Formats: sequence, structure tokens, C-alpha cells
Amino acid sequence: MNDSERTFSPGLKGVVAGETSLAMIDGEGGRLQYRGYPIGELVAQGTYGQVAELLWSGEWKADAHLACAPLPEPVTEVLRRLPPTASPMDALRTAVSAWGAITGCLWPPTVQQARELTAFAPSALAAFARLRDGHEPIDPDPSLPLAEGFLYQLRGERPDPAAARALDAYFIVGAEHGFNASTFTARVIISTHSDAASAVAGAIGALKGPWHGGAPAEVVDQLHEMGSTDQAEAWIRGTLERGERLMGFGHRVYRAYDPRAAALRSVAENQADVAGWLDKAVAVEEIALRVLAEFKPDYPIKTNVEYYAAAVLQGVGLSPSLFPATFALARHAGWTAHCLEQAQANVLIRPDVRYVGPAERHLPA
Amino acid sequence: MNDSERTFSPGLKGVVAGETSLAMIDGEGGRLQYRGYPIGELVAQGTYGQVAELLWSGEWKADAHLACAPLPEPVTEVLRRLPPTASPMDALRTAVSAWGAITGCLWPPTVQQARELTAFAPSALAAFARLRDGHEPIDPDPSLPLAEGFLYQLRGERPDPAAARALDAYFIVGAEHGFNASTFTARVIISTHSDAASAVAGAIGALKGPWHGGAPAEVVDQLHEMGSTDQAEAWIRGTLERGERLMGFGHRVYRAYDPRAAALRSVAENQADVAGWLDKAVAVEEIALRVLAEFKPDYPIKTNVEYYAAAVLQGVGLSPSLFPATFALARHAGWTAHCLEQAQANVLIRPDVRYVGPAERHLPA
Repeated sequence: MNDSERTFSPGLKGVVAGETSLAMIDGEGGRLQYRGYPIGELVAQGTYGQVAELLWSGEWKADAHLACAPLPEPVTEVLRRLPPTASPMDALRTAVSAWGAITGCLWPPTVQQARELTAFAPSALAAFARLRDGHEPIDPDPSLPLAEGFLYQLRGERPDPAAARALDAYFIVGAEHGFNASTFTARVIISTHSDAASAVAGAIGALKGPWHGGAPAEVVDQLHEMGSTDQAEAWIRGTLERGERLMGFGHRVYRAYDPRAAALRSVAENQADVAGWLDKAVAVEEIALRVLAEFKPDYPIKTNVEYYAAAVLQGVGLSPSLFPATFALARHAGWTAHCLEQAQANVLIRPDVRYVGPAERHLPA
Repeated sequence: MNDSERTFSPGLKGVVAGETSLAMIDGEGGRLQYRGYPIGELVAQGTYGQVAELLWSGEWKADAHLACAPLPEPVTEVLRRLPPTASPMDALRTAVSAWGAITGCLWPPTVQQARELTAFAPSALAAFARLRDGHEPIDPDPSLPLAEGFLYQLRGERPDPAAARALDAYFIVGAEHGFNASTFTARVIISTHSDAASAVAGAIGALKGPWHGGAPAEVVDQLHEMGSTDQAEAWIRGTLERGERLMGFGHRVYRAYDPRAAALRSVAENQADVAGWLDKAVAVEEIALRVLAEFKPDYPIKTNVEYYAAAVLQGVGLSPSLFPATFALARHAGWTAHCLEQAQANVLIRPDVRYVGPAERHLPA
């Protein structure tokens, strides 16, 4: 094959790098389905444990239950060695890597490994969050569903049911979203016949980048900065006039209203703790969409998942420093499902590169 | 863009995913150059420290010196928590991840970070190798070049000059090789604006897979299994007749003699410790190439880098369990150089995917 026959695409945009049965994403229509089930229906009727099993097995198992797993003692000891100032994403990546070293995780990835990794990660993040604040980690309660169990391990007490429900919904909408950069990283790693812990550690590293993992905490910051709802329109106009970005609006894929934002908004509305903040978010959203349509009449920019994710994460009382790593916890189900899917019909993922460097030269004699 | 306009390539073969000024690889001609300098010349006249600086900066710095760096105490403590049975690749990945957490490594990648990571990794692997054997780690000697310093930290004594020279040559030929799966992983991770430690931890995970990192230890095993040189031809014929693979021959890219194998053979010939073994390897190579040409007349299969890499690694007395992770140490220069190159002209690497799963369906009422 010579160069003219090759596709040149540095970002791989428009290059279909594989097939998936996991997520159907319709950006124009604002639709997202996991294995055929609409995301709104999954959030309204399902739990994260059911959704994770659906992603791994392809089947809806009404009795599925996924709780946080106890941390192997050496992982807790590893987390104790990290400074309290460490990025929670770095701590989670290190914990997953240590888990792989301790369990001897190997190819091929299995549903059992997927379940163990997904159940392990919230316990690891909660332990780090407590250790950095000078508290001892709390053992998981196996009776609690994963998202609620994560909050329990952070605080030592069960959250109120509305908060548990809202965080579970957040975990569901964050579970899977096609070939984003972190998921693709996981598939490249698995494609070499490496193991699921290596793949997930790599994926966490990719999600750490703000071009991928985003910055839901900045939505909260902006809503604080703009002051009262009366002042929102002037603040939004100023931001857009300066060419700055309005956080929580616009998405690479969705031109229509992000179906994940819609699903989260409906659960956020039931959170008493966040009622005042949510009223403001809803009012600001209406203003923002109107002003954005005026600034970019030819390019539809709609509310994205981060906008109401911020409402939920703030509503359940999570520290904004944990927002990105909490997104990573939710995405474990999808990453591991992609590991299984890649392994089932594996081909080594290895693109070509064009050399544009110096012509042959020689070292000084 | 609709589906018919897209390139469908699950392994990305023939898809040019970027440009590089680092390695020029000519598989047909059996040529490899780093920034224009032929690999044979770099091995004959250069050191790994000079080659690493060349890859990072683009310039040949005759006075470049790269020594192993002291381990931050928390990394040593992390390595103490891993079981002695852990895979050295898992241990190295965990150490690099912990290093990132401890140093607070952030975008954008810098030459200083590249230097620190490359200098850190051999100390981490040596510390793990000693700890698993029940010995305390040894502080690095800053006067020793990197590869020699790695051997020193494994054993507490300086290797003989021929062994140091041979391992340095191995590090040079292993430093960089275009868009293989691990390097591509590092670039995908960096492309999200994540950090160099995340990228290298992901790359180590990808290199762990035997479809990428290979298995130089198996070359040694096969040479032992085939018995004396007299018995080699019958053993090789039997292996190929059973449809099994002859380790150390054939490469995805090189149709001609792998220029890295040629460079390593010339340094291996100067290692007294490996003289007898090398005589056998040279004799077996001649037989293997003749038999391979007979079995696959239309498809040239030549000696690859693993064949003489095995001779060098065995010659310097490394445990075969450390071969893959030692390859990873050498590749740190290339991985980090790719991080720098990706960041300089960054575009998010995110391919498309084709949905082939179930049509819309609904949860049971």
C-alpha cells in the first residue's frame, strides 16, 4: 500500500475503528440506547447494577445487584502512601493498577473481572478521599447498591434515598458512550492481549484530560459567578462576547438536547437538598439556550450532560475535587464491557504514521 | 458524513493516524533511523542518554548524560505492598502511576518530565526486583549511564564493561519504533490534555500484551529446547510442520533483515559471558532462515530484534521474568518523545464506531 491509498486522519475523525453492540448514539435525534434500551427508560426503571450487567452480558437481569467490594489490604496501604494533595484521578489510576498487580489480572478479560473492577473502584476512591482528610477508610456495606455504597464509604452514614437515587442515575448515564478517547484507549490496550486492569488504568489516564473528562465542577463555578438569575443574561452575553466557553452547553456528538441531561434533570428535581440551586439552573438554562441561539444561529448548541451532572453531584454533597473521578467510577461498566467486546473479535489496533522528519544524516565523526 | 463516506478499519491498518519526526522505518529496505540517524550508527557511536535527548530535542548532544534517578520514598513504599509474585510489568505500571500522583504530573508534557520519567523507571523496576527477592533496594549511582545504573541497582555491583555496553545498545534499539500499540496509546491519552505519567502508565499496559511486547524469553526457551546445533534443523522443521511459530523470526513491518537485530548481534559478539550461547544462536539462525525460506518461499521471514535481544538480555544475566519490563524501560524515551510531539500539534484522537447491536427495545413493564 502506498501513501496515496491511505487515509490520513490525525484525530481519526470519520474513521470507523470498530463495531459495537453497546451504545447506539444518535446525535441528531438526541437519542442514546444501551443495547437497545433508551437511556431515559434505564434511568427511570433501572439501577446501575442492572445496567452494568446489561452492558457486560447483553441481557436485562431484573435481579442484578452490584455492591462495592472490600479493598484488598495492600491497596489501602498503597493509597496511604499518596500525598493528600494527589489528584483523585491519579489515586484511582494507581489503585486500579495496584489491584491488577495484586490479583494478577490477565488476558482474556472476563465478566467476573469486569464486575470485580467496577465494584472495587468506588471503594478505592472513597478510601483515598477519607485518607486525605485524615480519616480511616470505611468497609463497604454489601447490602447497598454501588452508588449509594460509594457515598456510605465516603461518610459512614447512608445518604437519604433521593440522593442515592440521583447518584445512581448519574452512574447510569455515565456508564457508557461509544468510542470516546478513554474507551478507545482501553480497547487499544486489550487488543495487544494485555489485561483488563491495564486497560482501565489507561482509560482513567485518558479521562483525566479535560478535553475528554470535561469539567463539571466548572458548571457549578459559573453558576456561582453569574450571581442571581436576574444577572445571568448579562453574564452569559459577556462570556460569549469575550469568546469564552459556557460550561454545560454543546457536545461533540449531540446537536439535539443531550438525552442524558434530560434524564438527570428529572431525577435532580426530586432532590430536596438541591432545590434552590436547581431552580436557578433551570432558569439559567432557558436564558443560556436563548442567547446561544442568537450568537450561533447556524449551529445548534444544546444543554449537555455536564450541566445536570453538576446539579446531581453538588446535590449529593460530593466535593467538586471528586467530580472527575466519580465520572470514572461510573464509566467502569462501559470500559470493561468494551474490553469484553474487543476480546471477542480481536484484532490488534495499530495505525500507520507518516514520517516527516529529517532526511538521512550522520553523527559527527 | 454518512457511513459510506467513512473508512472502516477495525485495526486501523493503512490508516495514517498522525505525523512523526522521530523514527523513519523502512520495512522493505530494513532501515531504521531516529531523527535521520541510522540505528546502526547510533548503536556503534552513541549512548542511550544521547539517543534519548536526540528523540526529545531533535538535536545530537555529544555531552548528554542520563543516569537513574533516586526513587521518591512513597514509591518504594508502594512497591513494598505488591506481592513478590506480581508481574514486573504490573509493578512498573503501578510505580509510574504512583510517581504521577506524587509529583502531580500535569499537561503539557515537558522535556524535563520526559527525562525524569525515563530516569525514574529503571530505579523502580530494580527496586521491585530486589524487594521480591527479599533484598532492600539500592540507591542509584548518578555517575553511571542509565542501562549500567539499572544493572547496578539490581545487583549492588557494577557490571563488566562489555555487559554495560551491550545493555546500552539494547536500550538504544528499543527506544523508539513509530506508532506501535503502546506508543499510540500514549498519544491518545496525551491528546485529551492528560499528563505524561498517565500516558506512560497506559503505554506500559499496552506493551504488557504479548501481541505487542512479544516474548524474548521464549527465544531462549526454544534455543534450549532444540538441544544441540546438530538437532536444530529437525526441531525447527517439526515446529513449522505443526504450524507453530519460530520465536525471533518475522516482524509485522520488516521484510528485510531487522536493522536492530544486526546492531545487537554486533555488540553481543563482544560479550564473553554469552559467547557459547551466541555461537549456537548464530548457527541456528543460519539454519532457521534456510528452513523458513523453504517453508514460505513467497513471504520473506527474517531474523527480528527479539532474537539478538534475547542474547543480550541473557548475556547480561537478567532474569527472563524481567525481559518485557526491561523493554518497557528502553521504550520510555520514545513514549515520552511522542507525548511531546503529540502535544506540539495536538488534536483529540477519537475515532468513530459502527453500531451493530439490537434495535430499540423496551424494559419489561
